[in-house]
Amino acid sequence: MKNCLFCKIIKGEISSYKIYEDEKTVAFLDVNPISRGHTLVIPKKHAKNLFDISKEDLIAVSVTIKKVAQILKDKLGADGINVLQANEEIAGQSVFHIHFHITPRYKNDKIHLFPQKKYLKKDFEEILNEIKGP
Amino acid sequence: MKNCLFCKIIKGEISSYKIYEDEKTVAFLDVNPISRGHTLVIPKKHAKNLFDISKEDLIAVSVTIKKVAQILKDKLGADGINVLQANEEIAGQSVFHIHFHITPRYKNDKIHLFPQKKYLKKDFEEILNEIKGP
Repeated sequence: MKNCLFCKIIKGEISSYKIYEDEKTVAFLDVNPISRGHTLVIPKKHAKNLFDISKEDLIAVSVTIKKVAQILKDKLGADGINVLQANEEIAGQSVFHIHFHITPRYKNDKIHLFPQKKYLKKDFEEILNEIKGP
Repeated sequence: MKNCLFCKIIKGEISSYKIYEDEKTVAFLDVNPISRGHTLVIPKKHAKNLFDISKEDLIAVSVTIKKVAQILKDKLGADGINVLQANEEIAGQSVFHIHFHITPRYKNDKIHLFPQKKYLKKDFEEILNEIKGP
């Protein structure tokens, strides 16, 4: 898609540090890393986010995520991995070409990704009814 | 697996608020939600995390994640969705049956999932060499 940063990276119009590539996906280092080796996994075919990616590309991306996680563990000695993905601006999406953050975690890295849980004590049945309802 | 909380939920030994189920996967509300409708997607077959889940189950889980994201958008009016997943304790994994958090996001929910980027200015080529090397 024209003016899409990640489409330009795929086409090679913008340079990137690629660590993995196959027919349908690419993985490259995030230029604003949360942690050492922070990588983005994207489909080559443009899709805005989870709501409009094809099943075929989603499957390809998932398989690449697993491969990249293993690479980061084996090669960089990551002690753990977080996978993060944002859909829509409210969720933190800033580039509107679907991408999964694969963030290596290291002992004592002092990163806190999950916010304090609020223990909302909401009425789960109410939510369930809303979801299951018409 | 014996003593696995999520295997017990799958077997019905522990109750849950299921919002979706198919042959290989289940989705149920997280009891400690980050946001209203916070859902966990898991494979029925036990796997610790991304490193040991089978390709087949990973694909099934991915397809369910997309379905659940759409359900939460359509039924609860989520304005966005975050997908979060942790591998190993250092990354925040507390139940060692692989699970993906699907967290609906709403306007003005004041949740900050991504930590402040550090702009590490690290030597990307060094990382790349480490990954590409033997």
